[in-house]
Amino acid sequence: MTPLPQLKTRLAEIVDLHHASALIGWDQQTYMPTGGGAARAEQSATLQKISHEMFTAEETGRLLDAAAAEVAAAGAAGLDPDADEARLVSVTRRDYEKARKVPSELVAEIARATGQAIEVWTQARAQSNWAPFSPYLARIIDLERQLADALGYTDRPYDALLDQYEPEMKTAEVQAVFDAIKPDVIALVKAIGAKANPLGDKVLHREYDEQKQWSFGLEVIKRYGFDFDRGRQDRSVHPFTTSFSINDVRLTTRVDRNFLSPALFGTLHECGHGLYEQGFSQTLEHTPLADGASLGMHESQSRLWENLVGRSKPFWKFFFPKLRAAFPEQLADQTLESFYRAANTVSPSFIRVEADEVTYGLHIMLRFEMENDLIEGRLVAADVPEAWNARMQEFLGITPPTTAEGALQDVHWSSGLIGYFPTYQLGNLISLQLWDKINTAIPDLTDQIEHGEFGVLLQWLRVNLHQHGRKFTSPELLQRITGGGLNPAPYLKYLNTKFGEIYGV
Amino acid sequence: MTPLPQLKTRLAEIVDLHHASALIGWDQQTYMPTGGGAARAEQSATLQKISHEMFTAEETGRLLDAAAAEVAAAGAAGLDPDADEARLVSVTRRDYEKARKVPSELVAEIARATGQAIEVWTQARAQSNWAPFSPYLARIIDLERQLADALGYTDRPYDALLDQYEPEMKTAEVQAVFDAIKPDVIALVKAIGAKANPLGDKVLHREYDEQKQWSFGLEVIKRYGFDFDRGRQDRSVHPFTTSFSINDVRLTTRVDRNFLSPALFGTLHECGHGLYEQGFSQTLEHTPLADGASLGMHESQSRLWENLVGRSKPFWKFFFPKLRAAFPEQLADQTLESFYRAANTVSPSFIRVEADEVTYGLHIMLRFEMENDLIEGRLVAADVPEAWNARMQEFLGITPPTTAEGALQDVHWSSGLIGYFPTYQLGNLISLQLWDKINTAIPDLTDQIEHGEFGVLLQWLRVNLHQHGRKFTSPELLQRITGGGLNPAPYLKYLNTKFGEIYGV
Repeated sequence: MTPLPQLKTRLAEIVDLHHASALIGWDQQTYMPTGGGAARAEQSATLQKISHEMFTAEETGRLLDAAAAEVAAAGAAGLDPDADEARLVSVTRRDYEKARKVPSELVAEIARATGQAIEVWTQARAQSNWAPFSPYLARIIDLERQLADALGYTDRPYDALLDQYEPEMKTAEVQAVFDAIKPDVIALVKAIGAKANPLGDKVLHREYDEQKQWSFGLEVIKRYGFDFDRGRQDRSVHPFTTSFSINDVRLTTRVDRNFLSPALFGTLHECGHGLYEQGFSQTLEHTPLADGASLGMHESQSRLWENLVGRSKPFWKFFFPKLRAAFPEQLADQTLESFYRAANTVSPSFIRVEADEVTYGLHIMLRFEMENDLIEGRLVAADVPEAWNARMQEFLGITPPTTAEGALQDVHWSSGLIGYFPTYQLGNLISLQLWDKINTAIPDLTDQIEHGEFGVLLQWLRVNLHQHGRKFTSPELLQRITGGGLNPAPYLKYLNTKFGEIYGV
Repeated sequence: MTPLPQLKTRLAEIVDLHHASALIGWDQQTYMPTGGGAARAEQSATLQKISHEMFTAEETGRLLDAAAAEVAAAGAAGLDPDADEARLVSVTRRDYEKARKVPSELVAEIARATGQAIEVWTQARAQSNWAPFSPYLARIIDLERQLADALGYTDRPYDALLDQYEPEMKTAEVQAVFDAIKPDVIALVKAIGAKANPLGDKVLHREYDEQKQWSFGLEVIKRYGFDFDRGRQDRSVHPFTTSFSINDVRLTTRVDRNFLSPALFGTLHECGHGLYEQGFSQTLEHTPLADGASLGMHESQSRLWENLVGRSKPFWKFFFPKLRAAFPEQLADQTLESFYRAANTVSPSFIRVEADEVTYGLHIMLRFEMENDLIEGRLVAADVPEAWNARMQEFLGITPPTTAEGALQDVHWSSGLIGYFPTYQLGNLISLQLWDKINTAIPDLTDQIEHGEFGVLLQWLRVNLHQHGRKFTSPELLQRITGGGLNPAPYLKYLNTKFGEIYGV
């Protein structure tokens, strides 16, 4: 065997370990009995340890060097530099160097610190008391700063942290785009506030049979094109999507008898992630390239199918009669228009995961700014709740009545996930940049959606985005698809147009 | 760390890999979409390869030697030779030596040969045509004979194969017991044949709501003592039990709308396996000792709860009224007595997995004799169907109309599982040897079962058998519990008494 197939064999085993690890994580959140928790944590740690050791071994580096030489020779002989194998070597080289840069003592120290911090945070949130959590966050910020130093950066330490989730995306670029968006969105929220629909989303909070909710969600995502021969959906407390192969993609969702949104929009959201994972080229199967380009790019797909499609008027033109047929009593007093407005209610609120399309971005920008302040030393952990509340007032005009509804609401910081939050908003921005291109490419898309047809849309995404997996970074993909970088204009135009129409502002 | 904890750490990681492997196997048979099959096979192979490499590495041997010295020193200072840690070292030493004896080329060759053979067998069975499968079986027999030579034996080559599933059990001992049983059972089958109940088990083949069957099975196994905080039950095409921890034991069962037995007795059978796995001492968690002593000992537990309890008159005194409450129409014409007889119908039949308590053992003895004939060269693969049919006529007085209902019915031989079949019948024999001891130890057991009380029975099994896991072999456990070796008398007495009463013979 030449070095390239040797490298692929080694990477395939590492992929197998990652997929086994993903499966035991899926089981933990779907079917595992409570008694299995302790053993499961050990199993997970062992699989991660072994795959990390295999990946960061000198042997992997040796094979990468030799395979790079093989690819270079093939390149001189005409191999496309974007060919799967060329990209496999360069992307894996990037992963390898990142993985080797972090001392294993630091990895262990972060694991220990976050293990404790999550427990303390759980208690602190339950008691809505920042004080006990504060020193743990301070410790995590210190470790994350060390992590940034280990990973290396040229401009901002946050670059190194963001790069873990959004490779090659720079803090300065994100900040510039967020800064460009902020005043307009704050203004829109204020304008809507004055005209808010007094009924809000009350209709979504009626009683809906759980099995019928489940079935309706499945009906929609079958039409979206989710392939149930290559995936399935199960229940979990916290919805997520994972996969163990391009041909085995698992969605999970939750169902609330007294609230339609979790099962309905949650299913569409996770399906967006799932369609991305089912869409990687089969030539990437069993390689590290069969994964999303970044968390932001992944989120662009979930937001596209949840919001741009699933909360649109054309979508509900097709699906509202079907939903009313499933729930005739609950929706007897509703029209397409009233239901569409309920599903698009905008209202400043404290909890990020319950935020609407307009206010959501502000929740993220708040966190992004605070993470940078923490990492760059302008803010200390003890002052976080105060800084949080000040920004909530500035961005949304509200102040959380408790810290549990403020700075303690998310698990991310206690888990050491600094640099993760902005990817949610990058997903929103990217989804609109794609949506602009899609509407140009498919002029009758609205008409197709009104008829419940999503095949051409999915095909566009497959060809332009999904098939590539991790062959390209999100900045590279944006360049290929839109000819430029992050651009806030489509996002702002969408919010202003859609919610301007709904709220008459 | 001294060598013993080092050894335990290494073995714990290997256990983690085995459990991850078991989980991906469980998922494959319960929830995996069809598309996941190809990747799953690779994942499974990778986990097995890595755990095999870790286990057979020189480092494991070095730690075993050092840990053995540590245990010997502790023994000199008074450590019980049956203490967990002493047994961990001796049992692992036995596993290690067995694993190191088989050349990896032979393992790979058997994997390749059986991979092909299973495909050919699937086709051959569908067409009921022995010829295409014959050369594949010949190849497997040749490889299994090589495997026996590699593993080593002093008396019979079959000893080495049997030892994989039933450590330290000898072919000669099994054969002596089977030979002692055979004439009596053949005579009993003949005697019953003349008096067979003309209605047979027709009542079990009525239409039973699937969800109610499922619920009834769960109600019984909750009473048996299966702990649903440390386990669960799911559906699969082929029922099985597996576990990923003493505290995470998974049963599976199937449900047939037109046949009560699969979900009912299948659930009780798998629960017997599950109670064994939940009963290992918690001190054995995360070690290779947290497993059944042998397949035969495992099967003794499934048979005990399925047959000795679940097909007994006292059991049905308690549960028949409940079953009739669940299915009032289907069981309107039934009495306790008629239902009990239906559930214990004896009739010679072609398919092993559908056989009753009396005829089942004969199906196994037939396979045991033929496997020995094949391995010792007295029979060649091409002559198997003829030899099979001759024995079916001798043992059960019937001749399969097709090879699919004869020598092609089981997957075991195509999978290279030579030496596996006798463990099923060993399970039956051992279950009765235990049952004798139990009835002496718990004189009012019948009364307890009539009242749906199983706690004292389970406690006896926990204390005398379950807690030990793999600390002792099945011959050692038999010796500890019964004071002797395999003994056919309790089995024969049970069959003659129970079925003598039912059939008046």
